[in-house]
Amino acid sequence: MKRRIDLNEKDIPKQWYNIQADMPNPIPPPLNPATGQPITPDMLTPIFTMNIIEQEVSTERWIDIPEEVIEKYLIWRPTPLYRAHFLEKFLGTPARIYFKNEGVSPPGSHKPNTAIAQAYFNKVSGIKRLATETGAGQWGSALSFACNQFGIECKVYMVRISYNQKPYRRVLMETWGAKCVPSPSPDTNAGRKFFEQNPEHPGSLGIAISEAVEDGATSKDSKYSIGSVVNHVLLHQTVVGLEAYKQLDMIGEYPDILIGCAGGGSNFAGLFLPFARDKIHGKEMKIIACEPASCPTMTKGPYVYDFGDTAETTPLFAMHSLGHKFVPAPIHAGGLRYHGMSPILSRLLMDNLIEARAYGQLETFKAGITFARTEGFVPAPETNHAIACVIEEAKKSKEEGKEKVILMNWSGHGIIDLAAYDAYLSGKLEDYVLPDDEIQELIKDLGKFPKP
Amino acid sequence: MKRRIDLNEKDIPKQWYNIQADMPNPIPPPLNPATGQPITPDMLTPIFTMNIIEQEVSTERWIDIPEEVIEKYLIWRPTPLYRAHFLEKFLGTPARIYFKNEGVSPPGSHKPNTAIAQAYFNKVSGIKRLATETGAGQWGSALSFACNQFGIECKVYMVRISYNQKPYRRVLMETWGAKCVPSPSPDTNAGRKFFEQNPEHPGSLGIAISEAVEDGATSKDSKYSIGSVVNHVLLHQTVVGLEAYKQLDMIGEYPDILIGCAGGGSNFAGLFLPFARDKIHGKEMKIIACEPASCPTMTKGPYVYDFGDTAETTPLFAMHSLGHKFVPAPIHAGGLRYHGMSPILSRLLMDNLIEARAYGQLETFKAGITFARTEGFVPAPETNHAIACVIEEAKKSKEEGKEKVILMNWSGHGIIDLAAYDAYLSGKLEDYVLPDDEIQELIKDLGKFPKP
Repeated sequence: MKRRIDLNEKDIPKQWYNIQADMPNPIPPPLNPATGQPITPDMLTPIFTMNIIEQEVSTERWIDIPEEVIEKYLIWRPTPLYRAHFLEKFLGTPARIYFKNEGVSPPGSHKPNTAIAQAYFNKVSGIKRLATETGAGQWGSALSFACNQFGIECKVYMVRISYNQKPYRRVLMETWGAKCVPSPSPDTNAGRKFFEQNPEHPGSLGIAISEAVEDGATSKDSKYSIGSVVNHVLLHQTVVGLEAYKQLDMIGEYPDILIGCAGGGSNFAGLFLPFARDKIHGKEMKIIACEPASCPTMTKGPYVYDFGDTAETTPLFAMHSLGHKFVPAPIHAGGLRYHGMSPILSRLLMDNLIEARAYGQLETFKAGITFARTEGFVPAPETNHAIACVIEEAKKSKEEGKEKVILMNWSGHGIIDLAAYDAYLSGKLEDYVLPDDEIQELIKDLGKFPKP
Repeated sequence: MKRRIDLNEKDIPKQWYNIQADMPNPIPPPLNPATGQPITPDMLTPIFTMNIIEQEVSTERWIDIPEEVIEKYLIWRPTPLYRAHFLEKFLGTPARIYFKNEGVSPPGSHKPNTAIAQAYFNKVSGIKRLATETGAGQWGSALSFACNQFGIECKVYMVRISYNQKPYRRVLMETWGAKCVPSPSPDTNAGRKFFEQNPEHPGSLGIAISEAVEDGATSKDSKYSIGSVVNHVLLHQTVVGLEAYKQLDMIGEYPDILIGCAGGGSNFAGLFLPFARDKIHGKEMKIIACEPASCPTMTKGPYVYDFGDTAETTPLFAMHSLGHKFVPAPIHAGGLRYHGMSPILSRLLMDNLIEARAYGQLETFKAGITFARTEGFVPAPETNHAIACVIEEAKKSKEEGKEKVILMNWSGHGIIDLAAYDAYLSGKLEDYVLPDDEIQELIKDLGKFPKP
């Protein structure tokens, strides 16, 4: 029984795949909120280095992965592709289920695929230090790891309520030598005004983004780094799908259905973009993005121009959004609590190349427990959204008596999220569904921006 | 740069290696403490199934790994062997350092290598339920995972102070469907007397062992399971060394120095036993067991007959021991807090086939941080003892200008032990060294037992 499909080191992808070369409709440009005019690349130079900005706007199909990045990728890549035999057997499905295990990286998720790349491109541009924000800490720990590998400093603004409640990821950042402070902090203008009003202000991702952007843009030799949503992050993540493509090819398989969870969209995009290219060229497949019912950006949010952050410091992006003032319910899948969605994913959704589904928190944890009790590995709460969909599709495959091939991105392990499993197992976990009337209220102001 | 040496699924070992076939001096038999007479295999049947007892006493060199065990091993095995290029570079050493990453298993350590085997052998013997004890929870979570895989129940008696202080591993056990109770519990005669005196009794590994043994021996369709020390556990762990042997052979390497941490001895024995066979036949190599200075069983304890547990319920084993009443200091490397040592390791130490070194807690965490900041992966506190020794040997290699090949068992990751790193990084961690006069006091009663 073939369970694991491994690639050799030499088979690691040497180029990232850029979907912008193949999209049926290009993504509309980000706009300056003051003028309504497109943002030009040079306007991004205070926060990003030029080599990163070039990737952000590039329409080249293949972009070389530098040797130094590959050397670091080899710390945990290529990652194994698993056939989920035990889950299939448990479900009694004729579907063949494959999952790409991105939990084997040192920080335990797919996040270092872009963190390593970003740290490298900043390093070679002479940058000595990166600033970023983090919610539950998954991204902050990945960037800490990456900066440590390239010998540059890292400062992470962590939403205070998470900083206090979830100390483990903060410790992980410190173990890798990063500095992690609770946000709002007294270290930036953006944070100071909240901090001085209330030194125990619980913070929000919006405030933390503002702090990190200000820090990256104004400190000498520093830049800002972001863990999802934008084009260059999705580009770096395609290493996941390119590997999976080769691994399936090695055993003569091709997916009928691709599944992943989506918060900002990067882990799922990383998996499916190399396959989406085939779909654009006529190949049939279903591509399903899974989101929380408490933050139904793609299933309920309109396709609009909106700010990327709560504090209105970013350009306007053309994306599915629930409005930048939206504060999602405190679900354990912290990585999926984002009001918007990657512009690339949003555009592909508009073009019907992908579809989206929303799942309640209880259903996702039920799916996660089923996975842990069959395949062994304990998934991250975010990943559980993808698993809920895989189980749904595998059951459908059984009903229809069809041997579907399902490929899922297993985006990370849940070993630092065991408190969430504890809450679920002891019956303390709640379901949150964002009511339709609240959505109407949230999006009513978005009409003031241009239409994408 | 070759960083990772992977084996294919088909290269997974099909037999375990039994060092008892090759030891220059056999291990003295366990004794009945009441009569001083050797324990016969049938006397162990209340707690172990006969197929496991046969492995415990076998002198066959190779023992087949059942297909069903291999199928489960493939969930995470073969594990990768890494060349620690970044650590080497940091140390500026000519040594070539390899580490076998056993942290990739679902519970995050080497423990499931034997847990899966034990669950299987009990399952095919008609056993429906296993009972075991756990300190910090590494073993309890591994057995929970294994029992879940074979569809048998698992009950874990967890030392109450750890149960209260370290909830994550308890949650992991429950995620895999096991029942975990704080010990002393009201569920056994052994526990009840302590529990009734004080329902918040902090417990000890000694009491927990007594509870689990009583449960396994007296419940219908149940047996007891143990995670280290005894012969069959070491046997199952040899899959680690057999894989590493092949992986090094694939790149034309052979270790000059083998290093591992030792609490009960099973992870390290698993790595070095297949190489020790060559040493017995004349090949030169250094084999170094690393233990805490607070629990210096091999470096300071005499080779004696002693009980395996504090409560004096086990047979007498011939081993290095600090006396079965010894309660080691509360270091974070919970898996190394054992008063005795595997009889096989103890005998090999007496025969000068291996050597032992003790390390202080602060030195081990310093080594762990160095590892995390070079190789990326965050090691378990136990593993940090091996890393301290690797760094010591790599520096010696540099001083001597010799290209030594060092092989280490990276026994597990430290992602559930981040509180310990937090304590270290914030300067709150203490060193404990067991004073010589206290050792004299601890071992003074051991003279009443027969000499091995």
